[in-house]
Amino acid sequence: MSMITTKLPSFMPNNPLPSPALQLVFPGVWKLRLGQNPEAFTPVNYRVIPAQEEGLCELPALETPPLDIAQVRAEKQTRGLLVKLPLGDEEVYGFGLQLKSFRQSGKKKTIRVNSDPVSDTGDSHAPVPFYVTSGGYGVLVDTTRYASFYIGAHQAPGAPRDADETAAAFSATGTEALYSGVDKASSQVVIDIPHVEGVDIYLFGGPTMLDAVRRYILFSGGGCLPPLWGLGIWYRTFGQFNQQEVLKLAHQMRDSKVPCDVLGLEPGWHSHAYSCSYLWNPKTFTAPDALIAELRGLDFEINLWEHAFVHPTSPIYRELMPYSGDTAVWQGLVPDFSLPKAREIFAEYHERELIQKGIGGFKLDECDNSDFIVSPWSFPEHAQFPSGMDGEQMHSLFGTLYAQTLWEAFRKNDQRTLSQVRSGHALSAPLPFVLYSDLYEQADFLRGVVNAGFCGQLWSPEVRQCASVEDLFRRLQMVVFSPQALINAWMVPLPPWRQFDEVKNRAGEWHADWEAIEAKVRELFEFRTRLVPFLYSAFADSHFRGIPVCRALALDYPQDLETRAIDDQYLLGQNLLVAPMLTGQTRRRIYLPEGEWVDYASGQRFSGKQWIEREADLYTIPLFVKFGTLLPLAEPRTSIGHDPRFVLTVKVFGESEAAPFRLYADDGVTFGYEKGQGGWIELAWDAQRGGSVQAEERAHAGRYTVRSWEVVPTRHSLR
Amino acid sequence: MSMITTKLPSFMPNNPLPSPALQLVFPGVWKLRLGQNPEAFTPVNYRVIPAQEEGLCELPALETPPLDIAQVRAEKQTRGLLVKLPLGDEEVYGFGLQLKSFRQSGKKKTIRVNSDPVSDTGDSHAPVPFYVTSGGYGVLVDTTRYASFYIGAHQAPGAPRDADETAAAFSATGTEALYSGVDKASSQVVIDIPHVEGVDIYLFGGPTMLDAVRRYILFSGGGCLPPLWGLGIWYRTFGQFNQQEVLKLAHQMRDSKVPCDVLGLEPGWHSHAYSCSYLWNPKTFTAPDALIAELRGLDFEINLWEHAFVHPTSPIYRELMPYSGDTAVWQGLVPDFSLPKAREIFAEYHERELIQKGIGGFKLDECDNSDFIVSPWSFPEHAQFPSGMDGEQMHSLFGTLYAQTLWEAFRKNDQRTLSQVRSGHALSAPLPFVLYSDLYEQADFLRGVVNAGFCGQLWSPEVRQCASVEDLFRRLQMVVFSPQALINAWMVPLPPWRQFDEVKNRAGEWHADWEAIEAKVRELFEFRTRLVPFLYSAFADSHFRGIPVCRALALDYPQDLETRAIDDQYLLGQNLLVAPMLTGQTRRRIYLPEGEWVDYASGQRFSGKQWIEREADLYTIPLFVKFGTLLPLAEPRTSIGHDPRFVLTVKVFGESEAAPFRLYADDGVTFGYEKGQGGWIELAWDAQRGGSVQAEERAHAGRYTVRSWEVVPTRHSLR
Repeated sequence: MSMITTKLPSFMPNNPLPSPALQLVFPGVWKLRLGQNPEAFTPVNYRVIPAQEEGLCELPALETPPLDIAQVRAEKQTRGLLVKLPLGDEEVYGFGLQLKSFRQSGKKKTIRVNSDPVSDTGDSHAPVPFYVTSGGYGVLVDTTRYASFYIGAHQAPGAPRDADETAAAFSATGTEALYSGVDKASSQVVIDIPHVEGVDIYLFGGPTMLDAVRRYILFSGGGCLPPLWGLGIWYRTFGQFNQQEVLKLAHQMRDSKVPCDVLGLEPGWHSHAYSCSYLWNPKTFTAPDALIAELRGLDFEINLWEHAFVHPTSPIYRELMPYSGDTAVWQGLVPDFSLPKAREIFAEYHERELIQKGIGGFKLDECDNSDFIVSPWSFPEHAQFPSGMDGEQMHSLFGTLYAQTLWEAFRKNDQRTLSQVRSGHALSAPLPFVLYSDLYEQADFLRGVVNAGFCGQLWSPEVRQCASVEDLFRRLQMVVFSPQALINAWMVPLPPWRQFDEVKNRAGEWHADWEAIEAKVRELFEFRTRLVPFLYSAFADSHFRGIPVCRALALDYPQDLETRAIDDQYLLGQNLLVAPMLTGQTRRRIYLPEGEWVDYASGQRFSGKQWIEREADLYTIPLFVKFGTLLPLAEPRTSIGHDPRFVLTVKVFGESEAAPFRLYADDGVTFGYEKGQGGWIELAWDAQRGGSVQAEERAHAGRYTVRSWEVVPTRHSLR
Repeated sequence: MSMITTKLPSFMPNNPLPSPALQLVFPGVWKLRLGQNPEAFTPVNYRVIPAQEEGLCELPALETPPLDIAQVRAEKQTRGLLVKLPLGDEEVYGFGLQLKSFRQSGKKKTIRVNSDPVSDTGDSHAPVPFYVTSGGYGVLVDTTRYASFYIGAHQAPGAPRDADETAAAFSATGTEALYSGVDKASSQVVIDIPHVEGVDIYLFGGPTMLDAVRRYILFSGGGCLPPLWGLGIWYRTFGQFNQQEVLKLAHQMRDSKVPCDVLGLEPGWHSHAYSCSYLWNPKTFTAPDALIAELRGLDFEINLWEHAFVHPTSPIYRELMPYSGDTAVWQGLVPDFSLPKAREIFAEYHERELIQKGIGGFKLDECDNSDFIVSPWSFPEHAQFPSGMDGEQMHSLFGTLYAQTLWEAFRKNDQRTLSQVRSGHALSAPLPFVLYSDLYEQADFLRGVVNAGFCGQLWSPEVRQCASVEDLFRRLQMVVFSPQALINAWMVPLPPWRQFDEVKNRAGEWHADWEAIEAKVRELFEFRTRLVPFLYSAFADSHFRGIPVCRALALDYPQDLETRAIDDQYLLGQNLLVAPMLTGQTRRRIYLPEGEWVDYASGQRFSGKQWIEREADLYTIPLFVKFGTLLPLAEPRTSIGHDPRFVLTVKVFGESEAAPFRLYADDGVTFGYEKGQGGWIELAWDAQRGGSVQAEERAHAGRYTVRSWEVVPTRHSLR
């Protein structure tokens, strides 16, 4: 198990390395220094969670770096450093939370943190200067500058040609046809890193693309292990609610038996926002201790919205002033969280006033940037911070540093959190903060689930307003099969399943069919709670082994060229394939990769390596289980709470050939897992002898009880 | 009159100036050097048209620079140079062709050339590092770097506050309310100029905002004086047309008596596009000389589409290779037009093969950049050019250098052109190239007309596809009252007034009401031809006096605070006020500034300094004439051609108090006006004696004949 330290990891000295510039830092992971004097303000230098060394050492060692170092070039230019890396006939993925595109070959991506990326430019809440290719390797550029990656996008001019290339006629009648290029065939990734003279890049070997991703995620520190309750249902309450209204909603939720684990309070809990006081509003939240006690008594965890901009009336304003940037945002200080003192002031206040009083997590809003909206906010790129960072560097790291600050406060209390954050960058995989967005395009939200996996990021395609009951269900289905099942009702007082229409909701008008709708929502959320042991084990696999919880088909099936373009289906944990339907769809094409796949809803069994058409009614999200899988499902619960015991039904998909399934077990709430106080339990199936449960260590055995083993009857599809 | 030279103007030495850093370069125009070693690749250093010195000297001399130089700061940073200029309680305008916003106070604008600016970031086909304020001065930053201007957008943090600022309740229910800021009150413009150590800025004094704009435009070289035919109607033909089909359309146009002066051919005329061969397609344009002769015989000017990316089969490819950038675009060379040799090769070919054979102008497409589309093209920012420019610098200058190259070819032939170009930057006002866009948002197109004037740019809100007959008329009305009346039917074979629906148009299906629609279009276009003498004089005012042809009300009425936010009305020439209706509108609010205004359509007379409501049927664009104006209207013509003689009806708005009107007259096609071969004719009105015409020089007297003076009966509105 990894030990956590806030010191720089030992393999990452602060001073320039002696030659040679290439250094093996972990098995299959190389560091290559290019140019001179790389900047100090980089993701690697500001990590607080070290690499997941044990997991890295379990992956196969490699003799040589995954690409030809002799072909790597770095050129100093007036504008910065130009780095050129070889690129073969490969498909390229990654760059963090890219909502607008999936395959990156032939494109330009600028790694710039921004809150409303309206186009496919690279801008994102959480862009990452890391890519991985179907050639089976990954590249991290350790910079906080807004680096632009040109991924095989440009060619040098060729020789003159005499051949007659006269067009018979010009045929385009639209700009898309005009601009569909022919230049996407260069054999280089060119990276334009502004303002620097040198940079470190890290190369992650394979042999497969998934191996490279795993090495990157383990190098980051592994995926986070959330508290068990974090895998339940999240619900953010109306921003105008006062204490009584929050409590009333909490009771209604429990009365309705709709599962829910986390209630989130929006800005209204502060005495001042925007910017933030971090003080309960004495007019609307008159007795916060009582509120917390009552909510916790109902088995709710409480998540509080905030951003980092500290209002002049906040108790920590005066103390933070010397450790803040030169620019106010919404009149608030911008703490320089790269400074231990700023972290300490901010974390201690949160620990004392909120965490120790029972708050389970935070929603860290607006820590990105805001170039693309009508009324831009946030600090400028030229802002100066006392650490010496400028605004550009700080924008890249701000979400990560902010999340680190609060994560350290929780860790000091030996209390895990799953929280939210609106920005991330490189190496943020181990921080238990899920990304979200004010954007709302459904296809983009789905693509986000698929893309985030390449960098080990967690992304919530949260449900907010809905255009129809159909839209409500399609969106809810997606969150239920995502890393965080979040309904963000900050704009409406009633749960959206009681009234999806925003205006009517605020007018208190319940939907005529609300009971029928709520019943279906309850059923869907219950399925999420049944999946919790499965999901928790997937998170443990991401923590200890670097395997993303949600991931592109191309990662598990690298030989299957058909998977390379698929950005609207994904694998969830071990051997589940999810193919959400979007609003407006009544059927969709689904690709099943090699193996055999069972349609969870119908039991229909399909051969893999084929596209199928699937219809799905409003209440069904197409879900496939790989034949040969044991799927443990818990009893449905209205909350997970702090009880790590689950009673399981193990569904056996493939009576004669189901492989063992490993469940992770621990207390589900503390950091004990870092010290080995957790372990694996193996479910196994034998066609003759039936199922068996084997715990690595006796201590965890009681956490999962198998009530029944159910062989799922499957029937081969005619297709 | 100005003398044209391709040398650097004498006031702009290449070497750093001796101190003091502040230098008066023209009356009311100062140059201020900040930092060290400003870059060589700047708009001022690459201008080919010198300042319009005579016009500059006619403006009032000023004793001191318009802002306090002692408050100007420049700081060298890792990221470049940070410049800080004082800003009072002023409204700020400018930054070139900004389609998304008008008032710039409190905002950030990055001056980055881009073809599809989807958000209000500063990105534009033709952004300009120039702003002007209601304080009555302007600032040009002479850089081709993607400078970011923070216009009073950020404050330093304030002191802690003890006051109770507790919100009674949180009230936002949407992100716009959340993000409406309170920080927009700093007293600085901060300019973040990447990669440079020094920069020259130019300060343009007032005393009024219009004076500052005029000084900037005159410093640029004055607005262009187009050929008379350029002020007629432009029509770009279907991209799939061959020679016969173009001719058929030309004859149909003349048969229909719908006015038209310029026919544009789209990419299909090339033997190869994209990229371009600049050779007629031998399969579809089999006899270009005959085509040109026949079109010119019908009094059409011919405009050819091209872009600068030179295809390997082009006759100039081999010769241009050494003078081109290191990156191909659509396989084509990117000529380095900053090099005299590249200009010479490109210009001589165009002169010999196209201009001298009768081509009247070009449409210079895709000389911007392409970050914001699905399939980006163009060269990267890190591209290298033989002059030493990088791609960032070249993107800023590319449209200007390209336009200069072809302008010089026309000038060598003593033949004026009005052409099109898709990019511009600082100082491009004197180049007779009108900007256009693939974007199509109607309100943005209107805002473009208003904003472009601040930098002396010309912008065409061209008509392409239309959603309805209403949309067709509302868009046509806007182009008819814009600098260039352009219908771009490149996507459809029939004129849009015969079928607005794209699909039906391509299917050859005429609109059931096409005759009635065409009759109304004819009438509208005829009004444009009637306005030509008025417009030509407005262009002459822009050339000799720096007054933008279309301009914001705030420029002419700086004392009237109500005008400061108006971005959907504009002044056209002397004393016309245009307030276009957008599709979907049947009425709109219109602000009339001080004075009295006559509704052109109804004769209704309104007092100024008030908002009125105006309804307008489909065929009417709200147009107001300031009371006291003489409005010369020519006889309608189907083409202007090369005949500079006009028979006028002078409409007298204000029998007892109409001020004289000055008409500019010359041959309308050559550069003779540079040598004084043009002059002004004054129309005057006396209530007793009627109208009179007075020519400065006898030579021009015959060019305008007044057939009648018509006193327009006006009646005071009850409002």
